[in-house]
Amino acid sequence: MRVLGVDPGLARTGVAVVDGSPGHLVLIHASCIETVPQTNEAVRLAMLFDLVVDACATLHPEVAAVEELFFSTNRRTAMRVSEARGVILCALARQGVAIAEYTPTQVKEAVCGYGAARKPQVARMVANLLGVADIAGPDDVADACAVAVCHHNRGRLGALTGRAVQREDSPLDRAVNSARAALARATR
Amino acid sequence: MRVLGVDPGLARTGVAVVDGSPGHLVLIHASCIETVPQTNEAVRLAMLFDLVVDACATLHPEVAAVEELFFSTNRRTAMRVSEARGVILCALARQGVAIAEYTPTQVKEAVCGYGAARKPQVARMVANLLGVADIAGPDDVADACAVAVCHHNRGRLGALTGRAVQREDSPLDRAVNSARAALARATR
Repeated sequence: MRVLGVDPGLARTGVAVVDGSPGHLVLIHASCIETVPQTNEAVRLAMLFDLVVDACATLHPEVAAVEELFFSTNRRTAMRVSEARGVILCALARQGVAIAEYTPTQVKEAVCGYGAARKPQVARMVANLLGVADIAGPDDVADACAVAVCHHNRGRLGALTGRAVQREDSPLDRAVNSARAALARATR
Repeated sequence: MRVLGVDPGLARTGVAVVDGSPGHLVLIHASCIETVPQTNEAVRLAMLFDLVVDACATLHPEVAAVEELFFSTNRRTAMRVSEARGVILCALARQGVAIAEYTPTQVKEAVCGYGAARKPQVARMVANLLGVADIAGPDDVADACAVAVCHHNRGRLGALTGRAVQREDSPLDRAVNSARAALARATR
């Protein structure tokens, strides 16, 4: 499944395409869409729209996994990022790409097994899962990879839910989960 | 000057075209762009984009006056409205329409002379200024008319600033301003 991961922003939007299936994930593309800071906001939003349309036309994703906004303390920033997010969702829908949305906590849990993992840890885990040395570029690129990986892993989780319910009291599962959480805390 | 007033929202976006000049304003068009509630958010944002593009193509505005978001207490709502606002700004910029933005307080001050005026009062004042009996439709339509009128009136204010500075201590001006504020409070 060819998943486009998107980490939205007005100045920088991370985009990454991850293909394959969990355990066999392949990083196809990872980059940053940037808008020119000197221009006014509406023109930057229009640029962002065109660049997302271009990315869809070039990268041919089957589905886009878009990160939801972290409820930041700065409302003005939250509104500006929401405006960019709206433009991105609009561009994807107009290109006929299916959309899944994940909160930052869901992304971190899916990638690190720990919802409060920090950025360097997320970047390391994602590089590991994708079999690359590291993810080049700003944090937004690694975050875009992470949300794409999250969609792959959560899709697998959904498929396994029936079995997971039967196994939820297994001492092995509890031990594995506890070890993953401890590892995540230790490598923060 | 042909001004497109826009009151943004995901479910309903008010749009109004006001032509002429202050004292001779003419309401050309007033309506509500609505998106289908049963569809998902990204599809609604794509609909909104297409409808704003259509409105520009049909109504030929020289400039768009867009209302800024009131800092509501509900962050989830604020983020959804911001997403819609982003799509609207993007569509206007791609159509080459110049954009001015006004806060709700600026709009109310420009229309009623009182920044905390209530919706029914704004609607009455706008209908009066535009020489129509009333503004049909939901509040969003009257709000769109109000932001268009605001752009006309503030443009005039800008042009008069030199004279206003000379006149600022005039007892007549102070009396007029005080009477307008008292009227606005009384008709709340």
